This record gives sequence, structure tokens and C-alpha cells, in this order.
Amino acid sequence: MAKDKKLVEQITSMDVDFAQWYTDICKKADLIDYSSVKGCMVIRPYGYAIWENIQKILDGRFKALGHENVYMPMFIPESLLNKEKDHVIGFAPEVAWVTMGGNEPLTERLCVRPTSETLFCEHYANIIKSYRDLPKLYNQWCSVVRWEKTTRPFLRSREFLWQEGHTMHETAEEAREETVRMLNVYADFHEHDLAIPVVKGAKTPSDKFAGAEDTYAIEAMMHDGKALQAGTSHYFGDGFARAFDIKYTTRDNTLAYPFQTSWGCTTRMIGGIIMTHGDDNGLVLPPAVAPIQVVLLPIAAHKNPQVVDVAKELYAKLQKSGIRVKLDDSDQSPGWKYAEYEMKGVPLRVEIGPRDLEAGVCTVVARHNLEKETVALDQIADEIPALLEKVRAGMYEKALANRERRTYACRDMEEIKKVRAEHGDGFIEAMWCGDEACEDKIKEETGVGSRCIPFEQKQIGDVCACCGKPAKHMVLWAVAY
Amino acid sequence: MAKDKKLVEQITSMDVDFAQWYTDICKKADLIDYSSVKGCMVIRPYGYAIWENIQKILDGRFKALGHENVYMPMFIPESLLNKEKDHVIGFAPEVAWVTMGGNEPLTERLCVRPTSETLFCEHYANIIKSYRDLPKLYNQWCSVVRWEKTTRPFLRSREFLWQEGHTMHETAEEAREETVRMLNVYADFHEHDLAIPVVKGAKTPSDKFAGAEDTYAIEAMMHDGKALQAGTSHYFGDGFARAFDIKYTTRDNTLAYPFQTSWGCTTRMIGGIIMTHGDDNGLVLPPAVAPIQVVLLPIAAHKNPQVVDVAKELYAKLQKSGIRVKLDDSDQSPGWKYAEYEMKGVPLRVEIGPRDLEAGVCTVVARHNLEKETVALDQIADEIPALLEKVRAGMYEKALANRERRTYACRDMEEIKKVRAEHGDGFIEAMWCGDEACEDKIKEETGVGSRCIPFEQKQIGDVCACCGKPAKHMVLWAVAY
Repeated sequence: MAKDKKLVEQITSMDVDFAQWYTDICKKADLIDYSSVKGCMVIRPYGYAIWENIQKILDGRFKALGHENVYMPMFIPESLLNKEKDHVIGFAPEVAWVTMGGNEPLTERLCVRPTSETLFCEHYANIIKSYRDLPKLYNQWCSVVRWEKTTRPFLRSREFLWQEGHTMHETAEEAREETVRMLNVYADFHEHDLAIPVVKGAKTPSDKFAGAEDTYAIEAMMHDGKALQAGTSHYFGDGFARAFDIKYTTRDNTLAYPFQTSWGCTTRMIGGIIMTHGDDNGLVLPPAVAPIQVVLLPIAAHKNPQVVDVAKELYAKLQKSGIRVKLDDSDQSPGWKYAEYEMKGVPLRVEIGPRDLEAGVCTVVARHNLEKETVALDQIADEIPALLEKVRAGMYEKALANRERRTYACRDMEEIKKVRAEHGDGFIEAMWCGDEACEDKIKEETGVGSRCIPFEQKQIGDVCACCGKPAKHMVLWAVAY
Repeated sequence: MAKDKKLVEQITSMDVDFAQWYTDICKKADLIDYSSVKGCMVIRPYGYAIWENIQKILDGRFKALGHENVYMPMFIPESLLNKEKDHVIGFAPEVAWVTMGGNEPLTERLCVRPTSETLFCEHYANIIKSYRDLPKLYNQWCSVVRWEKTTRPFLRSREFLWQEGHTMHETAEEAREETVRMLNVYADFHEHDLAIPVVKGAKTPSDKFAGAEDTYAIEAMMHDGKALQAGTSHYFGDGFARAFDIKYTTRDNTLAYPFQTSWGCTTRMIGGIIMTHGDDNGLVLPPAVAPIQVVLLPIAAHKNPQVVDVAKELYAKLQKSGIRVKLDDSDQSPGWKYAEYEMKGVPLRVEIGPRDLEAGVCTVVARHNLEKETVALDQIADEIPALLEKVRAGMYEKALANRERRTYACRDMEEIKKVRAEHGDGFIEAMWCGDEACEDKIKEETGVGSRCIPFEQKQIGDVCACCGKPAKHMVLWAVAY
């Protein structure tokens, strides 16, 4: 296939330097620009359009489950952040502090929200009075700030965009159900819409969210075998409710504390898409969130201008049926266009040349495997949805195969070390006794940390891979982003 | 009409205390809650749903005109803010400064964006190289912070939500066209979707945006006769481009500075909706942005449960046709429900009682004038869109009549003072010589400030109402929010 060398050569190969390849894609696919504030990125139109598509799908799912959107202030007074002990210990070291308003020092400094549990709790204390006020199912789309030392676009930035759900319930059971329900929404969104297979599980106690009783997460494997935590859901019990004195009158006319959850997904998902599906030609986007799902390229219009007319007709048809389609009849060379839309990760490219026209066909190229297919011109508009679904399924299978190929069951430290030495990064499944000391030791000696205790447990022997004592859980271990 | 006294009595009458009436509505219609940070409000689900509807309509219009959404960092380093002289003078006194990241003082303090011209310019300097890169038509939805001394929900808050468009063009003429085009989008959105008549015009030099060559605004009259600036659009010339060294290669292969605009609308619009349309029963929402457009109330279901079935059928029909509809078959009294949905400003209430059912009709009550209409049950679903449009037109007429009744042409200071003494607040149309001293004197002696130089000029004599020298413009004067 013809390629514009100039464009393609600018990307580092993923096998040569995965980190540089990632950064190259972020820049060359026009997803981001750097700003003069370290760790704060400009999300460019093409990157932001991916985020808008993600938002639209997730927002629809949240609302279908009865959640309502709200907006909380971006500032948290220090005294408010301090109200829940574990929470402040977790977050205070990594917040940005506002100390001046105009020319005057503030009497109390304010942090820029790193997460909004404290703000939601302050509000819930005002509005939750009776069991009739429960459940409260709130969500917020906003940006948050965490003053990270090391930063990378999408994966770890000082400011990032996210949604944070915050819910309050009458019973612990209902709150626990909500926690798992929303984890399942995230998992389903990743597997179905982003074509990213995930492992659902619980975080070990050392890795829980600051202030949570339980934290659940979905973990995805990136192309290089490393893990990405792609979404989390927390069960808080009534800890925050007690700290913030949120009480309601129960059905029995007594006073009680409600039970709480929170759950979040961030622009990090875009990093996950890049590292799961991308290749040396650039980005590969799942159809559900691709800003352009189909690009139409009339070829050699100077030989037969009719190719442009036919492309325009097809464009109108596809747009009418809700497909995000682009027609590029600019005077750039076909090679340049191939490279450009491959870099941008457009799922399907439809080429219509003079010979195609004569034969009444067009050529469809799928981005994820670059395979070509000939489709009759009078059927292509109707075929596009099925072709897009085929792309999605193919992307998912490819990612799943990568994960399965790089997942290793290990019985003891020696096996873990051997796998690490022979295969490098990947997911390691190994038993654990539940002792934090073993978790630390495994990390220290083999480099892999506990990612989660998968809901789907396997029995890989019955003793802890580290200490040999009876095992409590199978844990997924990996090096993580 | 039956009313639940308990609910309705909680609002201060607008004629008794307009400011208190406004605050009461913000709270009682569940639009906002106060937070512990002065001037930062919680936007509750009902308030936020109005904002989401506003966003959806405006965002669609921006995109239809070729604008693309982006996301810029929320922090601006002090040195970046300082790059354009007039801009920093205007904004530095009212920004919030971040001085600490975690436990460490920052080497350079960062302000939380009060507006993002400087950030966009920094980015534009990176990406605009050639005339082929122009125009750049970017927009951003985000929150911004201005450290106001006096704050009021929606009208003047330290943090507020908005959109800010930032565009770059090859020629001054194109940029000027864009400035006016976007002002017209705002005006049309207000008049058509929000049913708020506006006056379009230019700001006087003393009232321009910091760094702009020209600022245009739309001014709306609130129910109490005061003015609300409801949207602004700025033409910057190439001032920022020069300050930020943004240069592009022209079609003639020379280097040139591009020409810039910015334009913004904020959550303040929700304050404008409240104060334009609201009454002593509460909020009155324009159908286009009402979270609930139609509420269905089955009446006396204990006498004939069929009223609920019929309401449910109607609910399904309306929802299917894209109407935002709510069915309230709770066991609250009809009086309570009337008061509740009047407070919430739901444009249409449809009541279906046993006697209606027998007669094959229902009763439709329009919120803005509380007029009742009987409609055949087998036609109501089809009639709703036309009834909503009638509401919109009625709300617009009512607001326009208020503005016309309270707009006064004055030839000199005596006439202005007389109008102020006799009629209180309102719009005053009076000629102006263009001298800032006269502008100041009119404000000082009569209390009204210049709101704008309307595009539609009238000739009210030919001398300045203040100094008697030849007049340059007719100016709209008023006390403003």
C-alpha cells in the first residue's frame, strides 16, 4: 500500500520505544498540545471529540439508571477536606492550594478539588433529611487537580477531566449493589464500546481509595503487557456520613446514617485506547467513540470526476443514517490521505476510484487490521453499520488475544521471577495470603504490584505464592501505569 | 385555583423585595445550594438540567458554524497572564492564586483562569503557521473564577460555568464578521429559545473587555427594570497575536499576525431566565430549556383509576415524540402538585380527572399566564408542540411588553432624573457625545450607567444629554446587575 513516508516515519516504532511511540501518537494524531504548566495539557479538537463521545455514551447510561448531574464548587476549604481523617491523609499531599484572592491573602486556604466526596457530603448534610430523600444518585462532569510529580498526557496529568458519581443509600446492601452496578457499567462500556477487555476485581486493602471501605476497579492490559486501572468504584459504608453528620429519619422514625458510594472514570481512558489498540501507523479508534467513523476517499478524480459525485452521494446517505463520516476530496495524494487517516485511527476507509466505479464497487479498508474488502456501491451504505461492528469485534478479539497470551499463572516467587525474566511485562495470576508484607515483598522482589482480587477467582494451588501459608485469594499482579 | 398555602407562602413577593424573591426562587425551585466557600454555589440537578439544555442548543449552533470544542488547562502562570498589558490590568485584581502544590511552594504562582485568551494564544502560537491553518474556530465549556467581592447565585459568583469561543482569522474583516455573527447567535438564542428580548450593541470604550478593541453585548431587561448583560463578543484586532508572537505565512508568502475574537455566555443566563419570566408562584421556564416541559397529573384516581392509565398512555406517546414529560401519580394532593410544578416553572400542566375522561378531554394550564384550555384527549399529544410554541411566544410578548413599557427616551439630564424619580428602574435612551466625562457624570447624578450603543440607533435630538455638545450615538442607559 502506498504510504507518505514523511508522515509515517515521524512515529517511533512501538517495539523500539513504547513510551516515545505513545507520546508521538498523542502529538501526531493531534490529540494534545503541551502547555506552559507542567502536567496540564491542551486537549485538541480531535482528542476532545473522543472525550465528548465517551461522555455522551456514559452520561446516557448513568441517566438510564436514574442518576442526575450536578455541579459542585471547584474549591474545598482546608477545614472541609480535613473532616474525614483517612481522606485528608490520602489527598492533602497532592493538592494545589489557593492562598490569595486578588491581592488579598485568604483567611483559610482552599484546595482545588482532587475529588469531591467532601463537597458532596457537605451538600448531602443539607438536603438529606428523610428516607424519602434517598437514594441520592448524583454525578458530576468536571476537571480535578492532583499535583503529581511525574506526568504523562492522559495517563497521569495534574489536571484531568472525569466524571465522579456520588450516591447515598438507606442500607449498606443497596450501597454495595450500587458500587458493583457502576463497576459493571464501566466494564461493559470498556468491553463493548471501547473494545478493551477488562478484569473486574477488588483492590487489596493497601490500595483502597482514601476513606473507602472497599474499592473495586477494572484493569486492562496495554499492548506492552502493563496494566492500566481504567475505572474505580468505591463503597464508603457510613464513614463519611458520620464525619459530616449526615442523618436521616428512617421508615421506623429513628435517626440513621446513610451509606455511600463514589465511582469515577477519566480522560485516562483515552490513554487506554491508544495503548490497547494503536500500532506503528498511529491511533486505532473504536467506532463508538471515533470522531470520524468512516472516511470517504475519491481516487483519481482527474481521470473521472464522477468518483467525487458518487462519494458525495454516499456521504449524504451515511450522514443521514447517523454515521460520523468525512469526505476528503482535497488535492492531497492518496498516499498522504492513507497515512493521515491511519494516524488518526479512523475505523473504516472507503476508496472509490474510476475502475471501482466501472465495476460498481468500492474498496473498504479496516484500520485495525488494514484488510481490504470489495463491496458493491449500491450496498455499501447499508453495510457500514455491520462493517463497523466487525471492526469493534475484531479489535476486541485482538486485545483479548494479547491479554491471554501474556497472562501467566504462577505458584511461587520463583515462577513469578522466571516469567518476568522470560516474558517481561504481563498479567501474573498468583495466590495471596492476605498479608500486606507478602504484597510488598512480591513488589520488591519481582517488580509487580497487586492490581486487584478478580471477581472471577481461579485456584492456582492453595498457598500464598510468597510465604507458603494458606491462601485467601487469587490476585492479579502486574506493572501498572 | 386550589393552592397549597404552605409551599407558596414561603416565597417573598417580587413587589415586596425583588432581591429576596430571587434568592427564594433559587432555593425553593431546587436550583442551587450554598457551599462553605463564599460565592461558590452548588448547582442542583434541576438547575443543572437547565444548563445542560442550554449547552446542548448553543453547542449545536456553534458546531453548525464550524466551531470545534477543545479543553485548555485551568491554570495560567503569572508570566503568561502578564503578556498582554491591558488584559492583566483588567484581570489580575480579581483572580485566585495557587501558590502551593502539595507541601511545596510553587516557583511561579498560577492563577485559576478568569478567562482563557492567554492560554489559547499560547496554543495558537504553536499550531498556526500558515494561512491554511486559518481560521481557527475553537470553543471551550468550562468553569472560570473571578474573585468578586459581592456575590449572588448565577448573577455574580466567584466560580461560574460558561463557554468561551476563541477564534483566529486571516483578516480583520473576517474577525469582525465573526464577532458580530456570534453576538447574533447569542441574541437569537435569547429571543427564540429563552424568550428573552435583547438589545444588541457595542460597549462604550470605558466598558470594553480588557485587551479588546471592541466589545459587543446583548442587554436584557429584567422584570424589575434593571439591565442584565447576557452575552458578550469581543474583537481583539491583532493585539494579542503581537503580544504572543503568533505569526503565519500569508497567501503572498509574507509573515503576518492573525486577527482574533472571543465570545462568552455563562450560567448567568439562568439568573436572566428567573428575573425575566418568574412570578410570585415561582420559576417560569422557557420550553426550550425546561427540564420538564409537560407535567401530567391524573386527578382523583381513587374515584376512577382509569385516569392513571390514560395519563400513562399519554406519557409514553409524548416521550416517544421527544417531549420532556413527567407523570406525577404520587399521593400528594392536587393543590400540592399545582404549587410544586408552578414553583418549578414547568411550561404546561395537563390535568386528567374522572369528569374529563367522561367528556374525552383534558385540561391544559400554561405556567406563564395560568390560563386553562380544554383539549380533546385524542388530540392532546399532537397539540403539545404547538401549545409549547404558544407558551414561548406568550412569554416573549410579555417580556417585550415589560421592556417597552419601561423604556424612556430622554433629551437631557432633567428628563433622565424625572424618569428615574417617577418610574424607578428601566431603560433610558439618550444621546451621548462620546466623552467619558459625560458618561461618568450621568452615572453619578442619575444612577444609570451606559449599557451599550445599540446597533439600532434612534435620533433623540442631536446633542449629548449631558453636555449639550453634538451627539455621536444614542446610548442605552440603565442600572445593571
